[in-house]
Order: sequence, then structure tokens, then C-alpha cells
Amino acid sequence: MYNPIGIFDSGIGGLTIAHALKEKLPKESIIYFGDTEHLPYGRKSNKAICNFSKAITSFLKSKNCKAIIIACNSASSVAYKEVIKFAGGIPVFNVIDPVINYVSKHCKNSIVGVIGTKATINSNIYFKKITTLSSNIKVKSLATPLLAPMIEEGFINQKISKAIIENYLSNKKLKSIDNIILACTHYSLISDEIDTLYNKKINIIDSPNIISNNILTELKKLNLTSNLRAPSYHFYVSNYTESFENSARVFFQENIKLEGIKIWH
Amino acid sequence: MYNPIGIFDSGIGGLTIAHALKEKLPKESIIYFGDTEHLPYGRKSNKAICNFSKAITSFLKSKNCKAIIIACNSASSVAYKEVIKFAGGIPVFNVIDPVINYVSKHCKNSIVGVIGTKATINSNIYFKKITTLSSNIKVKSLATPLLAPMIEEGFINQKISKAIIENYLSNKKLKSIDNIILACTHYSLISDEIDTLYNKKINIIDSPNIISNNILTELKKLNLTSNLRAPSYHFYVSNYTESFENSARVFFQENIKLEGIKIWH
Repeated sequence: MYNPIGIFDSGIGGLTIAHALKEKLPKESIIYFGDTEHLPYGRKSNKAICNFSKAITSFLKSKNCKAIIIACNSASSVAYKEVIKFAGGIPVFNVIDPVINYVSKHCKNSIVGVIGTKATINSNIYFKKITTLSSNIKVKSLATPLLAPMIEEGFINQKISKAIIENYLSNKKLKSIDNIILACTHYSLISDEIDTLYNKKINIIDSPNIISNNILTELKKLNLTSNLRAPSYHFYVSNYTESFENSARVFFQENIKLEGIKIWH
Repeated sequence: MYNPIGIFDSGIGGLTIAHALKEKLPKESIIYFGDTEHLPYGRKSNKAICNFSKAITSFLKSKNCKAIIIACNSASSVAYKEVIKFAGGIPVFNVIDPVINYVSKHCKNSIVGVIGTKATINSNIYFKKITTLSSNIKVKSLATPLLAPMIEEGFINQKISKAIIENYLSNKKLKSIDNIILACTHYSLISDEIDTLYNKKINIIDSPNIISNNILTELKKLNLTSNLRAPSYHFYVSNYTESFENSARVFFQENIKLEGIKIWH
């Protein structure tokens, strides 16, 4: 129960989820793994994403994690089942199901837009799961692959980001939506910009909050929450650079250190 | 002498060099390797880029390549010496030295701008080599990391690309330049846009042409040119997706097929 929670992502975007988790569960130790060597996953094949995810799961298990969170929509879309298999009984959470359950309950009789990487959108997972749970919800999806690199390069709240976001959101595939799911962990950093561009008329689903609430509830059910006075935080990456470390601070909203570690080859 | 020329890049951008080479040396067989599993290199550590480059060099040697071209500025910047070591006597070409030699001869008494990925610009290789060869040339460099993903996602010749390119080119680090080196193989696809934004007043160094001319000259010197009537072309990638194949056609300007191949793990 005092063991850490393991979180992984293709890179540093998943730190938005780690941050939300730290806020919601301040007495839990966290081990984060960002696969910066293979980042970004969004355009890679399902097989490659599954292989990376399995190796990272083994690493987190070796660190005695009591639960594993796949804080990456691309990996959640295509590798969730594989990670469960590899986790050998440790509970595994993805960042998609809690959002889908929330939407199915709270967005009835509406049109829900989904934006994310190519891997996430091509998997069609949001469409399939939401329409199965709630036949009265329409889902419209659009791959928005330039948003993640744009955010990583710090183009936020300015002319460039406005032009790129506007270009994507005005795509006719997203016409008439009432709600929008930001199906990439990076996107919470441009949530306000999206809100402004929509003149606050579209409901933006607050994924990090929904996801961390869900994890809290589930860990409580499993009697796995801890009560540490001084929880520890470790942030590992498969490829360390200063540039990643600088971005990490933006995503986690704290001055953290990244540790490079070799878990393959 | 009839053996193929090996070319590699972090992904598919190097196909602009492969294309220029095919135009200039139409009787040579070509084996291309794009490391789409690790793409992009531009933000990765020098050590990681060296390791990838060494593994790819071994692969190209196993395919009996008579020469190896590093068609990637990031890898040329940081892994050239390592690749020479691993190539075991096969001639190795990078995409930087021919351009530097050209600029040192043809751009005397001018200010030369360089744009490229973080790995390339942080290596400072253009600055160091040009100013060593020609003390009367000033070099001004700027990392422009969003350009490669922008081009890969097809944002070319439109509002978004204009805004992004304009934002970078108006950076004061590039003030007063007379010439500009596009130090990333992707950028030749936006050469015209850059030319227009500068009102054709800045001389854009035509890297693919300079590089392929240089390789032709060197292969002739080494008596390594071939005279094949039906040369063969193979395009390997470490991670195959349709999306990469579609982009490959844009960069190579022909309807090519990519072959996925596993050279590590």
C-alpha cells in the first residue's frame, strides 16, 4: 500500500496527468516513465506501441509499483490489454475509459467531438465505446497531429497556436459539436485557448480531473491508497536532454529533475 | 561498383536527398533506411543518435552498400565520426560538409543564417566549421523545431505554414542575413515559401543540389560510379505505417513503397 503508483507516457505530456494525480492524491509516491527515446507514439504502428508499453510495464513492476497508469492516449488506445497481461495482477488504468464513462453519463443527447493523435483517432476507440454505451450520443473525431509538437515547442497562447488550433477546429468533421474531448495528455495546456476560440460555447471535457478522480475512487475500493507524510517522486526518461527537462517543468507545473535510464537494448 | 549506395535518415525527410541523388546519378541502385521508430532525432541526445546511426550503418553494410550517406543533419552533426568508424573503410558522406565548403567559397563577406533542429543548431557545427574556413563570414543560427513536424503533417503553402515560418524568420537572431542554409532535409519542401517571405532578397542555399553534386564528384574520384541500366531502389523503415508511406511519396516525389524491417531489439 505504500508502494508507488507507476505512470508512463510516450514522453512528457503524461506529466499533466501525474500533476493532477499529485493534487488529488498528495500522499502517494509516484514513479513516472517517459519514453522520450521513441516519442512521439502518435504516428507509430500499434505493434511498436505495444512493444514499448510492455517493456515499460516490466520496468515499473521492477520498481514495485502497486498500480500502473497509462497516461498516454495512443498507448491507452492500442496497448491497454497487453499492459494488463504484462502487469500480472497489478491494477492498470488507462486515460480513456474514465473519460468515456463520464461522457456517456453526462453528455446524453449531444454531439461529442474528439481530437487526438493519428494513433488514437485511427483506433476509433472513443467512437466505438461511447456509441456502445450511449446510443443517443453522436461522436465526431479529428486527428490533430501538429498540436502535440506545437505545445512541446512552447507555442501556446499566441498567434501561431491560435492559427493552428483554429485551422483544426474549423474542420467540417467537428461541425455542430456541443462537447469536446481533448484526447491527448498535452492538450490540457491549450484548454483555455480552445475555450476562447469556441467563445466558451462548447463544453470542454476536463480529462485530467476526471481521470485522477477515477483513480482515487478505484484505489480506495482496492484498499490501495497510502498515507505517506513524505511521498517520493521519480521521473525517468529513456532519453535525457535538457530540452525535455525544461518541457517537463511546464507539463508538471513544478521544477522537477528527469533521470535518464536504459530499459532496452 | 554495381553495389548500391546506402542512405539513411531519422525518418523520411532524407528522401529529398535520395531524390536529388537519383536525379543526378540515375544509374545507381539505392538502399534507403528511415528510422521511423525513433523519429525525430532533432531533440534526442547525442549518445542516442550515435547508437541509432551505428546500428543503421551495420545494416547498410550487411546490404553491401559501397558508400553511406547520412541524409540527416542531426545525425551528420553528432554521429559522422562514429559512422566512419563503423563503416570499416566504406566512404561516408554527410549532408553538412559539402554545404559548408560551398558557403565558404561562395558567400564571402556575407552574413549566413542557419535554421535546423535543436540537435543540429546546438551542435554549433555550421558556425564552427564556416567561421574556421572563412573568417570573413558571419554565421547566425536559430533552432526551428516546429518546421519538420509541420512539413510532415502537410502544412505547406498555406496560412499555418506562413505564420510559423514568418514567426521563426522574424526572430532577431536572423537579423541582417544575406544567405540562409536550410539545415534540415525536410526544409527543401518549403524553400519556395521561405523565398517568398524574404521577397526573394535572401539567397537560399540549395543544399540537395550541392550535396548530390558533391557525392557524384567524390564517387567518380573513387571510381565507384556504376552504369546500371535498371538500378534498383529499396526503401526500408524501422516502423512501417501508411501515414509514413504517404509522406514518403511527398518527399521522394514518386509513388514508392516502404518496407518495414527490424534491425534492433
